Amino acid sequence: MKIAVDAMGGDFGPKIPIAGAIQASREFNIEVILVGAENIIHKEFDRLNHDRANISIINTAEYIGMGEGLISFRRKKRSSLRVCAQLVKEKQADAFISTGNSAAIVYISKKILGALNGVEKPALALLVPSGKGPTLLLDVGANANCRPRHLEQFAVMGHLFMQGVMGLKEPRIALMSIGEEKSKGNELTKEVFKMLKASPLNFVGNIEGKDIYSGKADVIVSDGFTGNIALKVSEGVVENFLSQARSEIMKNLFSKIGFFLMKRNLKNLYKRMDYSQYGGALLLGLNGICVVGHGRSNTQAVKNAIGTAKEFVANKVQEKIETEMDGFSQYFERMKA
Amino acid sequence: MKIAVDAMGGDFGPKIPIAGAIQASREFNIEVILVGAENIIHKEFDRLNHDRANISIINTAEYIGMGEGLISFRRKKRSSLRVCAQLVKEKQADAFISTGNSAAIVYISKKILGALNGVEKPALALLVPSGKGPTLLLDVGANANCRPRHLEQFAVMGHLFMQGVMGLKEPRIALMSIGEEKSKGNELTKEVFKMLKASPLNFVGNIEGKDIYSGKADVIVSDGFTGNIALKVSEGVVENFLSQARSEIMKNLFSKIGFFLMKRNLKNLYKRMDYSQYGGALLLGLNGICVVGHGRSNTQAVKNAIGTAKEFVANKVQEKIETEMDGFSQYFERMKA
Repeated sequence: MKIAVDAMGGDFGPKIPIAGAIQASREFNIEVILVGAENIIHKEFDRLNHDRANISIINTAEYIGMGEGLISFRRKKRSSLRVCAQLVKEKQADAFISTGNSAAIVYISKKILGALNGVEKPALALLVPSGKGPTLLLDVGANANCRPRHLEQFAVMGHLFMQGVMGLKEPRIALMSIGEEKSKGNELTKEVFKMLKASPLNFVGNIEGKDIYSGKADVIVSDGFTGNIALKVSEGVVENFLSQARSEIMKNLFSKIGFFLMKRNLKNLYKRMDYSQYGGALLLGLNGICVVGHGRSNTQAVKNAIGTAKEFVANKVQEKIETEMDGFSQYFERMKA
Repeated sequence: MKIAVDAMGGDFGPKIPIAGAIQASREFNIEVILVGAENIIHKEFDRLNHDRANISIINTAEYIGMGEGLISFRRKKRSSLRVCAQLVKEKQADAFISTGNSAAIVYISKKILGALNGVEKPALALLVPSGKGPTLLLDVGANANCRPRHLEQFAVMGHLFMQGVMGLKEPRIALMSIGEEKSKGNELTKEVFKMLKASPLNFVGNIEGKDIYSGKADVIVSDGFTGNIALKVSEGVVENFLSQARSEIMKNLFSKIGFFLMKRNLKNLYKRMDYSQYGGALLLGLNGICVVGHGRSNTQAVKNAIGTAKEFVANKVQEKIETEMDGFSQYFERMKA
């Protein structure tokens, strides 16, 4: 199996994806293709121990910075991101991952790989842990502006993913909103509520922000603006909580001893809450596997994002979704008619 | 000082606001007017110790249930909520609080009290703790659908509140979005970004979900849908974290002893994260003080919401905002022209 990694993306520069790629290749026993500026990659290789890592390099002169926009996405024909997508398109890689500019990843992946039949907008889908197994949140940031039918398509993609990949028979689909009653929500969600109610999906209604980690639904659908804010707020609360906990613990000797005794358990807890354990979001709805890591990824998070891509390839996620989607694309056709 | 309390609102029935009113009257040394079904209130009085509580009762035959809609808001001319708002309008109460149907509170308050000059939509504004002092989030749920100019008005109200009430010279105003760059956001926030940039406010740009508790801004503006989700997600994460922490702690003897030693510090921490300590949100932009408590409020939360209302009255929040608003209503007039 070959996974292409965009070596140039991420808030902290190429060091992180390069180190993550080395670790992932070793730990998951896969070939990694690092795509980026060869001289930078070689410099990191000189610095890092890369014994037993199965890595090849594809040199690209260009890359897309975190602040760049549409013009760069289009013009830079040899950006590391575009080359990654092309490798998947040409079946020289089974999947690619990037922790770079997420708007660029979404635009270029769709352009190069194309979307599945019936899907207008691929969505960023993230599996988050709940007390009762994982829940798929989508869209967590690919599409800031959505029409009702886009959210319906997200619901279908989420359904197919949880059914085909996670083996759930009738995944429970919920709509993120500001109250459980169907009268609650904004113009967008009220319209989507009606559409999902009328669909063949197992729609369980609106779900409030407080319940997204409760396990009350298997798939939670939202526009990419709302979904991104929900996710980032979660991160912020956890970080805030941990930093306040740290200062509370340091206040006196008893709590320091207490912390020492609880250390291992608190670490378990931290691991479950830490975004770098999540392993990246799948850009769902493309003709190919693209995993998007957090811009703030550390080495561990990059490694886990590559691990996620590997799992998706090994589990034939793409094939399963494509097969199932055929049935639904007929459904979409009927809806349009 | 007299605070009117809607005795009939809240997810758990009249018991909670009645008990909260008794505690608040005693603790804050204020008169509370309980508005609701007299027989229910008397029954609770028989059950509860209400010595030294300074409470009067206004009997109302009707109330608005948590699931009711616009038709009830309009038709029920003697609902407990409407009577509360009328008491404030007629200066028989200095403020009112309700933990009831929030759509009803917003609709009826605006109808009875009217909005300040220049304000089209009053917004639910909540002070949340950050590492560096309180931050005002608005709108956290009054208006699910907003136009750009509404968010501009929220920004002005937030500015006036933090200046007039919290004494900040140049409150830092931020816009909740999905990236710090001005190019990031949805159609609504991109438009609002331009308006705030051109306004006389101290606009510090977009703020991401992860930073809403970081203290990077004094006021964070969003539409009521997004703001409500951000707030509810925070609640959910804290609850989820605490329940997972509990099960981790119970796993072995060491961590149990550790917990025992840390108990007091963890309680401090919990207090800071617990919504019932927040004390309710101000419905900002009305001709009068209305504090909205969480529907899931317990007695403590109701008491704190009444305490918040008392603070607002004592600090002449209404007078301060009205005076300052005059300058800004001219600004709004110019904007419209």
